Amino acid sequence: MVFYAVTGGTVRALDLIVKTRDRGILTAEEIRFLINGYLDGSIPEYQISAWLMSVFFVGMDAEQIGHLTREMIRSGDTLRLPRRDIPYVDKHSTGGVGDKVSLILAPAVAACGVPVPMMSGRALGHTGGTLDKLDTIPGYSTHLSPDEFVSVIEQCGFAMTGQSDRVVPADKRLYALRDVTGTVESVPLITASIVSKKAAEGAQALVFDVKCGKGAFMKTIEEARELAESLVSTCRALEIRAVAVITSMEAPLGYAVGNFLEVEESLAVLRSVDADPRSRDLVEVTVRLGSWMLVAAGVVPDVAAGEKMVRDALTSGAAADVFRKNVAAQGGDNSKLDAMLGTFRPKIEETVTSDADGVVVGIDAFRVGMAGVYLGVGRSVATDAVLPDVGVVLHVKPGDRVKPDDPICTVFAATRDAAARARQELDGAFDVASDREYEPKPIIREEITAL
Amino acid sequence: MVFYAVTGGTVRALDLIVKTRDRGILTAEEIRFLINGYLDGSIPEYQISAWLMSVFFVGMDAEQIGHLTREMIRSGDTLRLPRRDIPYVDKHSTGGVGDKVSLILAPAVAACGVPVPMMSGRALGHTGGTLDKLDTIPGYSTHLSPDEFVSVIEQCGFAMTGQSDRVVPADKRLYALRDVTGTVESVPLITASIVSKKAAEGAQALVFDVKCGKGAFMKTIEEARELAESLVSTCRALEIRAVAVITSMEAPLGYAVGNFLEVEESLAVLRSVDADPRSRDLVEVTVRLGSWMLVAAGVVPDVAAGEKMVRDALTSGAAADVFRKNVAAQGGDNSKLDAMLGTFRPKIEETVTSDADGVVVGIDAFRVGMAGVYLGVGRSVATDAVLPDVGVVLHVKPGDRVKPDDPICTVFAATRDAAARARQELDGAFDVASDREYEPKPIIREEITAL
Repeated sequence: MVFYAVTGGTVRALDLIVKTRDRGILTAEEIRFLINGYLDGSIPEYQISAWLMSVFFVGMDAEQIGHLTREMIRSGDTLRLPRRDIPYVDKHSTGGVGDKVSLILAPAVAACGVPVPMMSGRALGHTGGTLDKLDTIPGYSTHLSPDEFVSVIEQCGFAMTGQSDRVVPADKRLYALRDVTGTVESVPLITASIVSKKAAEGAQALVFDVKCGKGAFMKTIEEARELAESLVSTCRALEIRAVAVITSMEAPLGYAVGNFLEVEESLAVLRSVDADPRSRDLVEVTVRLGSWMLVAAGVVPDVAAGEKMVRDALTSGAAADVFRKNVAAQGGDNSKLDAMLGTFRPKIEETVTSDADGVVVGIDAFRVGMAGVYLGVGRSVATDAVLPDVGVVLHVKPGDRVKPDDPICTVFAATRDAAARARQELDGAFDVASDREYEPKPIIREEITAL
Repeated sequence: MVFYAVTGGTVRALDLIVKTRDRGILTAEEIRFLINGYLDGSIPEYQISAWLMSVFFVGMDAEQIGHLTREMIRSGDTLRLPRRDIPYVDKHSTGGVGDKVSLILAPAVAACGVPVPMMSGRALGHTGGTLDKLDTIPGYSTHLSPDEFVSVIEQCGFAMTGQSDRVVPADKRLYALRDVTGTVESVPLITASIVSKKAAEGAQALVFDVKCGKGAFMKTIEEARELAESLVSTCRALEIRAVAVITSMEAPLGYAVGNFLEVEESLAVLRSVDADPRSRDLVEVTVRLGSWMLVAAGVVPDVAAGEKMVRDALTSGAAADVFRKNVAAQGGDNSKLDAMLGTFRPKIEETVTSDADGVVVGIDAFRVGMAGVYLGVGRSVATDAVLPDVGVVLHVKPGDRVKPDDPICTVFAATRDAAARARQELDGAFDVASDREYEPKPIIREEITAL
């Protein structure tokens, strides 16, 4: 037990690791030292990973997360959006299965006069990604320059793009390290990662959709609540108006899981908001998130008024118009898109039927998401290509009655092998029981606001 | 919250980090994978440091520590000592101030017929190192080859050397990483480090002196007990007979703190075991540790018999003879050593006097140790050179009465500056109070055995 004292530039990093490890509170300046040192190479990765693991175990208060988030934002470019009377509001989802909310929400909120600068991510693991869905629209660009991004918002009220490498490079570096050191699942680190990227894109208010359940990153309401509170309190520390809505992700949202299949369902909802009962949960989540965005922007006094306004934008066709304008503004071809509806399908189409008699009491979103991964909807590793046309369409939703041989879902696959692997997952996904065992659960679980 | 999946050789290391982090129990094979991967470079340091920090937080059971210790031993050479009827027994101390126990203990135990293969360390921080003390003896070599080591034990019953770089290289690599990542203070990692080195040197039984108090690594009895139990249970897992004795390190042991000064005190005890009351605590600890070594070796039935045998070896001069034989066997010059006694002193000698009237109720071992660091007894950093002749001699011990102007200690320094800095530390080290406040505390606190 010899005490080798440390010399050189790593000394102070060591002190800060020990401070965090022993539950001390780092100052803004100390967090800056760690992040800058990591980025400029003066602090080695083995010290940063030890610090990250300490954070995993001891956590961080909102003030420290705020400091970390600020330093991460400072590491790269921030988007300067032109001043407007109404603040820019964005939504972030923690990721789910069948989660095509953004495609309906952004045009609906934009149709209500609130500008939406939306930067989205790609599918990974069992969850889908908005960019992969948008990429199925012929000609549509998800690589907008900052000027194009601003211009598209001017033209149609919202724009959707991927994030440039120059926005929050600290997050990319930290995420890559967390990913290989078992420090991904840390609420403070997740919070700083999410909020830094959203703040850097210029949003002045944020609505978070924190998914909770089998198909979500957060499996329990306690975990979801912890993340939701962390997101909202960190935004408060950064003076960003914020609301977190915890929504259920036990079953897939809506009926489609796939890239183009989800664009189709989104367009169906934009055309006729209440036509398909299988999209009811999707509409409910979208309307609620949209109403909070309107409240956060200050255009309505409360969520009740907001819900009415969003629903009106959907019912009137105003949101659908905004969507078509956006497609055109981002280089997409609306005619080609229309022609693909109901026809853009892969070679294999297999319908899965029920072997049970009763009520669908649950559809496991994780299993459906994994079926999607096997089909090519998502990615096992970040470099995988995704397929645009494959996926799963649910014919039933929880609460529906089924008899033997009733179709419960259809699998769209590129190969028989992929279809077979997906069907294996899907076999265990549908839980049919007697109707006494079915208890409908609210899709909106909890809401945490800092407005 | 995207899930980037990991590819390549770091995947399994990630799984093991997460397993430890989530309080899973690693198998021998999994620990081997981590240690080998670290040593051969296939697992990067940032993963090992994250794993070490997880171990810091969640701990390890004795079985896992046993696996880790075995893998660390396998990383390098192990010494093959010739078979003997009586097992080889060594002692390890967690480090203290004025801790010259080894210099008396090794010859005393050897004089009782038990071979002692002792590999020691150097001073660092406020604690002293046996090798630095031995290096003050003219000609004495602390760099024995394995053959020389065996030969010296044959000649005089014990040998003292530093550890070659080829013994437990995994410990050197791991320690260097722990040192800069805030993972030094982890009982399982400390245990594996200590036991691996002692097992690799060929000891068949071990006695641990776990220091506890202001001048020790473990400040509280709870911490000391945790380490003691971990050491003993890990030895049990490795089938090494072991005893841990928790001894008090509130005040320095004996009266001398310095390299040659401690050789002098050791020789004084070897010459006349009870002559100086200031060495009483040193003798008590030495006799107790020695008696457990004899019990562990099976040459006495119990510690009472062991204490008598060790004390006899000291009183009879047998231990002193063995010490002189050892000096000669390791290339040292006994005549020159004798000539240095009382004369080998640095330029500056300053006596510190009491300004209080009462009883010395405490002498802060940490402060005295830090005074030693300023004088050059120890090292601030591993590459510092130590001075052979400097140090502090205590004229009083806890329980002694002092009046104003009574000498309480003498500082031996190379420079006035060093003396002044040391005296600053020493000023706060002596606690004098009314005799009602003095309560003698036992030097032997607790004992944990696995024999």
